[in-house]
Amino acid sequence: MKKVKVAVVGATGAVGEEIIDLLITRRFPFLEIVALASKRSAGKILRIKEHEFTVKEATPDAFEGIDIAFFCAGGSVSKALAHEAVKKGALVIDNTSAFRMEPDVPLVVPEVNPEDLKWHQGIIANPNCSTIIMLVALAPLEKHFGLERIIVSTYQAVSGAGVKGIEELKNEVNNLDYTPKVLPVASLPKHYPIAYNLIPQIDVFDADGYTKEEWKMVKETQKMLHRPNLGITATTVRVPVKRCHSESIYVELQKDFTIEHIKEVLASAPGVIVMDEPENQIYPMPLELEKKDEVFVGRLRGDLYCKRGVNLWVVGDQIRKGAALNAVQIGERLLSD
Amino acid sequence: MKKVKVAVVGATGAVGEEIIDLLITRRFPFLEIVALASKRSAGKILRIKEHEFTVKEATPDAFEGIDIAFFCAGGSVSKALAHEAVKKGALVIDNTSAFRMEPDVPLVVPEVNPEDLKWHQGIIANPNCSTIIMLVALAPLEKHFGLERIIVSTYQAVSGAGVKGIEELKNEVNNLDYTPKVLPVASLPKHYPIAYNLIPQIDVFDADGYTKEEWKMVKETQKMLHRPNLGITATTVRVPVKRCHSESIYVELQKDFTIEHIKEVLASAPGVIVMDEPENQIYPMPLELEKKDEVFVGRLRGDLYCKRGVNLWVVGDQIRKGAALNAVQIGERLLSD
Repeated sequence: MKKVKVAVVGATGAVGEEIIDLLITRRFPFLEIVALASKRSAGKILRIKEHEFTVKEATPDAFEGIDIAFFCAGGSVSKALAHEAVKKGALVIDNTSAFRMEPDVPLVVPEVNPEDLKWHQGIIANPNCSTIIMLVALAPLEKHFGLERIIVSTYQAVSGAGVKGIEELKNEVNNLDYTPKVLPVASLPKHYPIAYNLIPQIDVFDADGYTKEEWKMVKETQKMLHRPNLGITATTVRVPVKRCHSESIYVELQKDFTIEHIKEVLASAPGVIVMDEPENQIYPMPLELEKKDEVFVGRLRGDLYCKRGVNLWVVGDQIRKGAALNAVQIGERLLSD
Repeated sequence: MKKVKVAVVGATGAVGEEIIDLLITRRFPFLEIVALASKRSAGKILRIKEHEFTVKEATPDAFEGIDIAFFCAGGSVSKALAHEAVKKGALVIDNTSAFRMEPDVPLVVPEVNPEDLKWHQGIIANPNCSTIIMLVALAPLEKHFGLERIIVSTYQAVSGAGVKGIEELKNEVNNLDYTPKVLPVASLPKHYPIAYNLIPQIDVFDADGYTKEEWKMVKETQKMLHRPNLGITATTVRVPVKRCHSESIYVELQKDFTIEHIKEVLASAPGVIVMDEPENQIYPMPLELEKKDEVFVGRLRGDLYCKRGVNLWVVGDQIRKGAALNAVQIGERLLSD
């Protein structure tokens, strides 16, 4: 396989570090990894596994000679630099929400819609973490039974707010006088503690009383499943958990099913592990599943009052499959195709 | 108003202490409060507000002369002693699940179905905490719009497992070597940490893959609303929060509605406070609402893909309205009627 030159923009963040870690441990065929970040971080030394990287400033010229550029430094950086990187010949895999809903940008989870990789025009978008985790579990159901509608409530880890979110939770637990600064949204006026608390706001509020995070789960799912009118409603909630997102998902299917059949379908689906043995108290829990690559599904139960309704409890590592791993898998898939 | 002699069975537990506290602070017309508990706790001194109680053993004879007995020492104690208390002339308000589904025992939330108090035969059951909190918010919608179906995911505090649950969370946060012993269910073989975790099991597993807690939300709701076939499905999850339960509730209504109308109906409903100003980042959060009497509702949003679907985010103090306060309110209502 041809070896490639890779850049990671936002290399000093939680997702950036995880991408570099995964590129190394998964033996991604790189000639070189260039760690890019803001001017402020330039010159910093990053040590990941046995490798050392000197962080460089992310400028248009930094993409000269780069084959694949992973962007995970926030939407504004992607908007400023992704097209520049494409102009220099790089393929951009963007972790931010900057281009996800652009009609000429495929939004891809390799287990869900790998076919969409074909029509990219230089930029491929990585979906939002809560959408990725939900869709890895639901795509096999869409394929075998058809999805009629989705009602989802999330339990999202603080890592969704980056390293700062994880530190905020730690600070609150260790120091009762700590004043929250990061959650729910650093740039908004009000901040609330997350330790021993739940915050039913992720990202800013948008139309119809929904947050942007909730809209992302609706719109990104519709785009990836190529079903612009699929009924979806979401309630997204931050919980005092470090890095795995959990989701209580209710779906109505288009065909009759048995729970056993659903379990078989999920057990043979890529990237899914069924973890569902109530008699042995086995079900997915976020603390146990940190740093796992797969999405775990349990608590599978039919709705006894709606023949085609089914409940799923889904857990996945937000930084890994919810962000870094999915981006790296997109890169792997592109190189192998 | 006639003054009454009150007994609290399970006076040394989290709910028992809260009941005594509420009887005092709400000026419940008691002549005397008798604190009862297991033989093991007999002789212990309880100090609550300015009062001191010497705990006595809960035996059949202890109910001699008692007018109202609050039971909150677990189902087996209620089964052993509630009928004995009734025989001695006491009215029993039972906080456990022992008699909730008995056809001759009314299950009551005063804001929801006070009319059911009339047909009691000595025992009145207090519903499960997660059911109480849900129904205080949903009863006004049932009355004005009719409920077509309910899909609920809970985020339940450790206080639901009593004082021991609260201590377990504290121990886990302070001592990384602590071995869990209480959650999810003390009597089952496996115990999992709740700090930085979520446990999608509350109470033991029962039929069809649902836990007993989930079945309680279904069956108790149907009983209280007098709608034995109302469609309800629940997923109940323990979260690292101390004493308020939160619930992401999705309902389909039987009539068309506007969100403004729903807000008006809820704002004028007894025991409900609407806390829903996204533009000011105002929504219910469990840490902020500890020890409040009301049930708080926010994040009200229509389902844009289902005309009669609406999302609610509901928070209430599990020990207070979810248990002790509701029991005391039942007593108050009986005395005033």
